[in-house]
Formats: sequence, C-alpha cells, structure tokens
Amino acid sequence: MKRIDVKECATLLKEFDNYLILSHRNPDGDTLGSAFALKRTLDLMGKKSYVRCVDPMHHKYSYLWDGIDNTEIQYDKIIAVDVADTKLLGDSFEELYGDNIFLCIDHHMTNKEYAQHLLLEDRAAAAVVIYEVICELGVEITPEIASCVYTGLATDTGCFMFSNTTPTVHRIAADVMEKGADYVNINRLMFETKSLSYLKLEQMAVSSIESHFDGKCAIMTITREMFRESGSSSTECDGIAALPRKIEGVKVGVTIRERHDGSYKVSMRTVEPFDAAKMCGKLGGGGHHAAAGCEFNCPLDEVKATLLETIKAEF
Amino acid sequence: MKRIDVKECATLLKEFDNYLILSHRNPDGDTLGSAFALKRTLDLMGKKSYVRCVDPMHHKYSYLWDGIDNTEIQYDKIIAVDVADTKLLGDSFEELYGDNIFLCIDHHMTNKEYAQHLLLEDRAAAAVVIYEVICELGVEITPEIASCVYTGLATDTGCFMFSNTTPTVHRIAADVMEKGADYVNINRLMFETKSLSYLKLEQMAVSSIESHFDGKCAIMTITREMFRESGSSSTECDGIAALPRKIEGVKVGVTIRERHDGSYKVSMRTVEPFDAAKMCGKLGGGGHHAAAGCEFNCPLDEVKATLLETIKAEF
Repeated sequence: MKRIDVKECATLLKEFDNYLILSHRNPDGDTLGSAFALKRTLDLMGKKSYVRCVDPMHHKYSYLWDGIDNTEIQYDKIIAVDVADTKLLGDSFEELYGDNIFLCIDHHMTNKEYAQHLLLEDRAAAAVVIYEVICELGVEITPEIASCVYTGLATDTGCFMFSNTTPTVHRIAADVMEKGADYVNINRLMFETKSLSYLKLEQMAVSSIESHFDGKCAIMTITREMFRESGSSSTECDGIAALPRKIEGVKVGVTIRERHDGSYKVSMRTVEPFDAAKMCGKLGGGGHHAAAGCEFNCPLDEVKATLLETIKAEF
Repeated sequence: MKRIDVKECATLLKEFDNYLILSHRNPDGDTLGSAFALKRTLDLMGKKSYVRCVDPMHHKYSYLWDGIDNTEIQYDKIIAVDVADTKLLGDSFEELYGDNIFLCIDHHMTNKEYAQHLLLEDRAAAAVVIYEVICELGVEITPEIASCVYTGLATDTGCFMFSNTTPTVHRIAADVMEKGADYVNINRLMFETKSLSYLKLEQMAVSSIESHFDGKCAIMTITREMFRESGSSSTECDGIAALPRKIEGVKVGVTIRERHDGSYKVSMRTVEPFDAAKMCGKLGGGGHHAAAGCEFNCPLDEVKATLLETIKAEF
C-alpha cells in the first residue's frame, strides 16, 4: 500500500486507459456520485471505464448515469471509491475484486488500506476528494459532472445540515452550482420527496410516542400492523429512527420496530451525556455514543419495561 | 424614496448614532438574524440601537440576542429589515412607525418602497444584504454576528435546500462558518428540533391529506380543532405548508389552515410547469411561481371545491 496525494492520483489516472470503478454496497449518493463523476471525467480524457456495485442502484439516482455508456469493458485497473474496507464491496465483489484494487479514493479515516494506492483525506464526502482530483486533472467540469459531485456533497452532509459540513464543502457546492449542477432537482429528489405510504407510517409512529422521565426520553413503536396499514416498506424507513430524539427536550430517543418474525429491533439515539452504546451494550447490542441498537425476542411490554429500567439507571 | 446601494447604505449608517431596528411580524430566522446582526454591528461601531418586533420572538432564537443590551433607547432613525411592506410590521407598529422608516434593507423584489432610503437586492435572504453591508462597513465579524448571518441564510433557504439557494449563499455560509458561526447548534435548533405538540399536529394534518388528479394534487387541512387538540401554536408551523408537495408524484400541494376567526388561509406549493401565483391570483391571492397563497371566508367544503376547480383548469 502506498499513500498518495491528489497530484499523484491524477498522474496515476493518466497512466492507464481502461478502468473498473467500484462503489460500496447499499450504494448512497456519495459513493455513486463520486463513481460517476470519475467515470464521466475519464470519458472526457478519452479513457474507457464502467461503474459497478454489488447491489442495485436506486432509480432516483439515474440522472448520475444518464446519457453515458456504462457497459462492461476489459479493464486494466480497478478503482474503489468511498469504500473504507473490501468487506463493504459486498461478499461476492470482495471475493472477485478485493485483492486487486489498484487505487482507492476515500474519506473514511478508518480506511483499511487494502488498495495498492490510497488517496485518503478527512473530508465530509468522497465527492470532495474526487472534485480535487478532477481539478488537478484539469478536465472541464461539465454540468453532469457538477451534478455528480453535488450529489455526493449534499447527501453525505444531509443537505449541509450535519456537523461534518465545512466551509470547503460549501465552497465546492458554490463552484459546482456555477458549473451547472442541477441542484434544484437533486435537492428535491434527495431530500424533499416522501411517499404517501411513508408519511402515513410516520403519522402512526408519532401517535405511538410515549414520553418518560419528564419528557427526556421518548419511545416510539412501529408495529407490523402499521407497515401493513400504511403500505410502507422498511426500505424507505432508514431515517425514521431519528424521529424521537428530534422532539424538543428529548435526550434519549428510542424506536422499537417489530420485524416480520415478530422479534423487535431497537434503535436508540442520544444527546450528551447519555451514551447509547453503553445502554444498548447492557442489553446485548452495541453501536456508537449517540446512535446504537439492540434486539429483543419477547412481548412488547417486556421490551419497553426492560428498556425503561436500563434507561432509568442513567438518569 | 431613494434607492441606495450597499456603499451608500454603509455611509448612511455611519451618519446617525441611535437606531430603532424593526423586524416583520411573525418573526423568522432571517428577519431576526438580520436585525441582530445589524444591531451587533452598530454596537461595535459605538452606536446605540435596539430591535423590536410586534410579535414575541420565539425563545429558540434567543442566542441571537444573547449577551447584548436590547433595552429601549431614544432613537434618531428607524431601520426596517426584511420588511417588504409596512403592513408586515403588524397593525400597531405600522401605525406607530410606518410613515417614518428612514432606511429599509430588504430582499423582496415586491418591496413597497415605503422607506426614505431603500437598499433592495434580489437575494435569497435579507442576511445576504446585511452581510454585504457589514463587510462594507469594515466591522469585524465576531462569532456572534456570524451566527446571526448564518441563521438568516440557513432559515430562508431551508438549510440550503430550496431553489433560492445560490453560489453566493454557500460562499457567505463558508465565510461566516470560518468566522465562528455556531452552525452545528443552529442547524440542530432550526431544522432538527420539533416540539411534541408540533409532531402531533403534523400527524393530524397528514391524516387529513386528500389526493386528487391521479395523485398529482394533495390537499391538507389544518383546523382550529387540530391546534387545540395537539396543543401546537401557529408560530411553530412555518414549514408545514411544504408538506403536501413533498409527497412523491405531487405537483400541486395545498395546505388549508383555519384561522382563529374561522377564515381560511391557503398555501400552495407547485412543481414546474404549475404556476402557484397564477392559480392563487385567480382566487384573489398572489405570490411566487412555486409558492403562493390566498384567503377564503366561506365553509371548508366551498374552499376545497373552489380550489379544485381552479387547479383542474391547469391539468
């Protein structure tokens, strides 16, 4: 493994002509935006490349690859983008490509250094690093490339809301907007659109919220019945576990989600000084300080009672 | 009325020593952020000033005036910030001050030109114009001023999500973040925190949503009863009118809100090619292409029927 900088990365990219670009499993806006920004840049350099991911890419991202030829080619070298660990390529891809990654462009400081060349920077999004590489290459930033970069920036920062947002992120956003990034439609697609079934599920979930310990703890329950009634699927519910902690005054927000098999998945979100990982750890789960989880295989009443007992000990 | 530019505005501000700064009724983050950014700047210039608003300022904005002396003083001149029309000062303030506004700093191109001097620019937020004035004055941007400016930028653009966001907005955000704007806490306060009563109101509002024209139009109704039952107040409902248009496939989103006096306020949000201003204009209201409103003084059934008829004509 050799750590390289942006300049060396640009030099390296010029050396070969045919690339396979890999994004991480469960692909999000940053891994896909970065991958297609790079592919579009290589296209402009007269090189051949294609982007692959072990999981299907959601149709809402289709503007990223609109109008380009992404068919398989014979590649010389493999590039992984926004992939901190070969495990994140997904099982089959890890086996196929894991030992043979020529270049990794990433922003996770936990990167496992698996690639032959690693361009790693502590940035809010992989798209920031990709943008720097494109600028170094001197390739013209087309509106399409601008949209790819913008997508990575905006999705990894929650539309510039999360604490990882930096002045650099805002300045690059300004630059790519001037280069023609279709930010109005991208923002709408990424942040504004909810399905009616999801809204209905959210509504039922909110009505289930119970408040404890003077409003400092909120417990929300989502049952199989609610999924059925609302018509919502669990794939669109990634963000819902954040809801209880958004309530004013809540320090410990808990979401209990009933699984298909009747077991319960618990997500806990906390505000300082409460430690979600510690509480969930006591219950056989784990995670981070502010976001953790655990599981239960018992009636809902017991789940709640056990949770409340554990949380009470922290107050 | 005399139109002035940023330079002339800075010169004007230096001329007098005691100012009353007025923000618009139902004060939001932009009018308050701009007003307190200006007041803090005048403080640093050794001048006296205080900010007033006809309506109470929500406690969530209290960091804007934290640590400053905002008591009443004898003022020489009145400045209105983010106030397009003296009506927006509120009835009693319009009567008290409406004829005597020395300077207006605004970003609404519909400004009624009521002030003796008008600094008007077509920007996303009044805070953009205020920022330019502060830079022109050459006053040091303290972390507190930076937080005031950031608040105006972020709240008027929905945290950089709305279509009014420009490269300039992003660049000023970057600048004030570097000057110490407390953007992490501001974002959490403005965009992440919801009261339980507001969540309950939202839940009731969602359950009222009716879908029309193959799901392309959604109508949501918020009644006085819902306000009573949820315990929510209209002051925390600024964003709720955006909800119907967020539903997947909706092109025309309508929110009907019952007022205390039983009349109805209608907010319409549209996606291209639908023109909210045109439709609301037909109903005696007005606004922008993507966001407009109108009012009704008749039973709810009639309100809906009239709206649907008007919307139907556009399909």
